[in-house]
Amino acid sequence: MEAAMHYVATIPAETLHIFTREIFERAGFSPQHAADGADVLLWASRRGVETHGVRNLKLVYLRMLESGQINPNATFFVEHETPVSAQTNGDGGLGLAAGCWAMRLAMDKAEQSGMAFVTMRNSYHYGAAGYFPALALQRDMIGISLTGHFSGQGAAIGVPPTFGAKPMFSTNPIAVAFPTQNEAPWVLDMATSIAPYNRVMLHHENGLPVLPQWGLTAEGEPTADALLMQQMWPLGGDRAHGGHKGYGLSMMVATLCAVLSGGWDDGHADDAASFHGFRQTGDSHFFGAIRIDAFRPLEGFKRGMDAMIQALHAAPKVPGEERIYVAGEIEHETEQKRIKNGIPLTAVTLADLQELSVKYGVRLEIEG
Amino acid sequence: MEAAMHYVATIPAETLHIFTREIFERAGFSPQHAADGADVLLWASRRGVETHGVRNLKLVYLRMLESGQINPNATFFVEHETPVSAQTNGDGGLGLAAGCWAMRLAMDKAEQSGMAFVTMRNSYHYGAAGYFPALALQRDMIGISLTGHFSGQGAAIGVPPTFGAKPMFSTNPIAVAFPTQNEAPWVLDMATSIAPYNRVMLHHENGLPVLPQWGLTAEGEPTADALLMQQMWPLGGDRAHGGHKGYGLSMMVATLCAVLSGGWDDGHADDAASFHGFRQTGDSHFFGAIRIDAFRPLEGFKRGMDAMIQALHAAPKVPGEERIYVAGEIEHETEQKRIKNGIPLTAVTLADLQELSVKYGVRLEIEG
Repeated sequence: MEAAMHYVATIPAETLHIFTREIFERAGFSPQHAADGADVLLWASRRGVETHGVRNLKLVYLRMLESGQINPNATFFVEHETPVSAQTNGDGGLGLAAGCWAMRLAMDKAEQSGMAFVTMRNSYHYGAAGYFPALALQRDMIGISLTGHFSGQGAAIGVPPTFGAKPMFSTNPIAVAFPTQNEAPWVLDMATSIAPYNRVMLHHENGLPVLPQWGLTAEGEPTADALLMQQMWPLGGDRAHGGHKGYGLSMMVATLCAVLSGGWDDGHADDAASFHGFRQTGDSHFFGAIRIDAFRPLEGFKRGMDAMIQALHAAPKVPGEERIYVAGEIEHETEQKRIKNGIPLTAVTLADLQELSVKYGVRLEIEG
Repeated sequence: MEAAMHYVATIPAETLHIFTREIFERAGFSPQHAADGADVLLWASRRGVETHGVRNLKLVYLRMLESGQINPNATFFVEHETPVSAQTNGDGGLGLAAGCWAMRLAMDKAEQSGMAFVTMRNSYHYGAAGYFPALALQRDMIGISLTGHFSGQGAAIGVPPTFGAKPMFSTNPIAVAFPTQNEAPWVLDMATSIAPYNRVMLHHENGLPVLPQWGLTAEGEPTADALLMQQMWPLGGDRAHGGHKGYGLSMMVATLCAVLSGGWDDGHADDAASFHGFRQTGDSHFFGAIRIDAFRPLEGFKRGMDAMIQALHAAPKVPGEERIYVAGEIEHETEQKRIKNGIPLTAVTLADLQELSVKYGVRLEIEG
């Protein structure tokens, strides 16, 4: 649920999808990586999750490619595996594609074994965490995805631990999806901070207010200035409001992603970015897929989900509110609308896409 | 981390452990159920988690036994299983013991298969959620435990969904434990509300303040009166502070526990407590155990955990704070102290235990 954005143009979802894939290809990614990358970004853009949509094509992924951070010729590979698990390596490649590859591995293993978890290290920003569990819905499985980063010496921007004065964690999201029968699929996709940092930047570039409850300045002062906000509050905020729980969830994510994968590991130089030789290079992820019929017949589970959602819809509301939503419902409705009406673009994103169109010679048709 | 309690007596941990087990036995539980029940309660009492310790022996468990709600002769059983999963039934028995049985099943399966999850329906209050993942630490596994309740027509006390005016969820906790090498085991045990409801009652009975940020009255008004607080805020609080995320986590817990186990299921009378014939009888749980060597060698994981914890300890602190804690650390230190010095009791709990001592003829030696 984004604050009201100012959009300047609209483009059919399928057109934007093809454009995004072609840009990734022309930029040097393989057809498979380009297709996966476009799938992840368009999923977010269709669902109104502007912080993780095509806005990031140039801003995040092509910038990281051009700076040499992302390896366009990455080959994702398994470092260790069992029938229910794998520890994998993203080879410094496009996180969007690495995530798709790892999630498919988890689902394929779960298909055979009932459930599976896959960790990955040495990857980069994998996009909207919710995309990967949503893939599991197509196979009627429960899907899980986490991505986490821990900075042993702290970072300029991120989430400090409770009572800490320096960001140590990224906004380490948790995403889980459950299949439903007739109701919208249940998709929880949440940063373990009150707000994800890229919402700060999104609001800034669109002239929207940044809320002071999201974070603090580097010096720990309250701020509503996007350019000064660097310490994002963990979910809950301060200790009295339960912020130690958001911090705990953030560390759980960091552990399942970075410690379990070996992404946070020793053997590095003991420099300013390392802690006693430990450091995390790139991002680490965690994916899971669980067959429902490992526990009970699928159909009963789906009916139970629908009934729970309907009970919540029917529950008494606080004065002034007309609806109670469940996770992913607003985004599902936005997706239905945008598939029909096209994807609206902000001025900044439109300018970025037009620049990429010229640079890579990929035609972009926009409805003004 | 409890507010300062007023204690009136102290009892050696082992003495209280044996006393609790004997009371469970005399009350009619089997030696195994009594032993497991005492283990769970004493774990919480040793660790200073007063909300889930021996305070609840009479107040929760024996009260539910005497009212006929808990079946003292329960036989826990498997309804469906695979090498990595089981759907089980608590037979309306003592949740503390049912949880131990189910967690052992998860660990035994994980020992063989690399990981396993076990759901359970038709159980009751299982005590401190953190106890069960902490069991996994003894086997160098990652442990997970959730317990959840969903009220299709709402309940007097609990957590409303965002924009909702009636509690629909219990405070549905998440508990996860990771093994460490030399640092205290990492044990996250958190209600998905800002505070668990039994903290409201604990504070009330000990004359401690109830914080208005924890919840609202039945009518949705702010309150600091324990007897009026009925709607507990989900973690995050209102929508602007991210409360929809706490609500999302609560529903995730309810789904993994109650929908996946069939604890929330149809076929019931469509009465005032049911929603379209769906209702949840008792509590439902979810347990998981994961072998670390399914991903990487155990020793490297443990060193990584220690390094992350040490990096957090060494991080810059906000003015006025001397330490940064990680999950379970304060409780671990309390446990070390209480094993040595005994477990302090409040006046209310002491009176309860003395009453049970007389009623069941089990001697209780207290240091005044």
